[in-house]
Amino acid sequence: MTGRLHGVGVGPGDPDLMTIRAQKVIGACGAVFFIEADGRPSRARATAAAAIPADAEEVPVAVPMRAEPGAAAKAYDMAAARIAELMERGVDVAVLCEGDPLLYGSFIYLLERLEPAGDVEIVPGLPSFVAAAAAARLPLVRRDETLSLVPATLPETRFEERLASADCVAILKTGRHLPRIRGALQAAGMLESAVVVQDASLPGELVRPLAGLEAESLPYFALIIARRGGEG
Amino acid sequence: MTGRLHGVGVGPGDPDLMTIRAQKVIGACGAVFFIEADGRPSRARATAAAAIPADAEEVPVAVPMRAEPGAAAKAYDMAAARIAELMERGVDVAVLCEGDPLLYGSFIYLLERLEPAGDVEIVPGLPSFVAAAAAARLPLVRRDETLSLVPATLPETRFEERLASADCVAILKTGRHLPRIRGALQAAGMLESAVVVQDASLPGELVRPLAGLEAESLPYFALIIARRGGEG
Repeated sequence: MTGRLHGVGVGPGDPDLMTIRAQKVIGACGAVFFIEADGRPSRARATAAAAIPADAEEVPVAVPMRAEPGAAAKAYDMAAARIAELMERGVDVAVLCEGDPLLYGSFIYLLERLEPAGDVEIVPGLPSFVAAAAAARLPLVRRDETLSLVPATLPETRFEERLASADCVAILKTGRHLPRIRGALQAAGMLESAVVVQDASLPGELVRPLAGLEAESLPYFALIIARRGGEG
Repeated sequence: MTGRLHGVGVGPGDPDLMTIRAQKVIGACGAVFFIEADGRPSRARATAAAAIPADAEEVPVAVPMRAEPGAAAKAYDMAAARIAELMERGVDVAVLCEGDPLLYGSFIYLLERLEPAGDVEIVPGLPSFVAAAAAARLPLVRRDETLSLVPATLPETRFEERLASADCVAILKTGRHLPRIRGALQAAGMLESAVVVQDASLPGELVRPLAGLEAESLPYFALIIARRGGEG
């Protein structure tokens, strides 16, 4: 009998924003994997800490995101091999994911390596943009409005196009791109409504209008929500 | 001392996909409101049933979506007045919402009526498109890809524009619009990857490729996920 692989979304950071299913699945697994990107401690691990069984094997997966192109792929290869080996021995494995596993999740790279081999369950998790809107009490979309998730890492022209084609945008991976984001939102007539949300659902949660902000960069987990003029 | 208003997202339908926070908040409220649109029983109420305290006042809010324009507004006015009255008496009120309260949620109409008055908390919930992707085990977006939520109720030209400007789309409110959706996906080169997901996370969950489907309409809660050609 082989084990099962569970890609488990643990949500934005507050342990209480995990789903009941995530808590149950993690609690029943014999091994728990989590990504440590560029040496940062895993936020997913911190979120799920109380749900991890004391006797589970915990496996940090160090992924060098900014190293040469092949380095991350090699880290995923090794982690996938380790997971496959555990599953063959009948161990159920959970991979902890910030937010949702299939929405910008590193889990996707493990899934594409492991799916052909075995039994996989995805436990969906609360995406960070949903928690950010809740923190800001900002209605996202209603009726026939469209919402787009747009990473600020897009090339400038495409970034501006994407902003122009939605009623509401959540801008992710903001980091060092703030000046450019500000310019594009201004051009799209969305700057006035734009709100910066940091650490949604966590003790350091911070919600601020972008317009008045003097910073030229934002921390890794900050995101921006903006709406086209008019209501909301 | 006045009561607090909680807009509580209960997720896609499986009670285990509620967050721990939703369960706690509902369990501590003295009154629980939920929308019954066009006479349909509330799916949010069914999802949260086990969390509702036995002695809580349960208040269904009948909203006629397809009647004359003012009818729904009047229903929200009356519900908001009732909620304000309870809060003034010191009662904590939960409004149950399918998915997330701020993402196409009717709660937005109550929030805009009640927010100026009092103390509001939004408990974010798992959106249905996230549960649908999990059911289909379909990676949504990675790296600098964009995702758009697009209601099929959009005018045709805008609907096609919105499909063309994203790497991955979740098409909501599909219902009677299936032939038109199929045409637009074909034009965008996304038909081959398109998957129809019904009742994600519920016992009747159904995942099917759109291409082979002969139906001309879909049930109310079906949604479609499609990706631009290439990977995924």
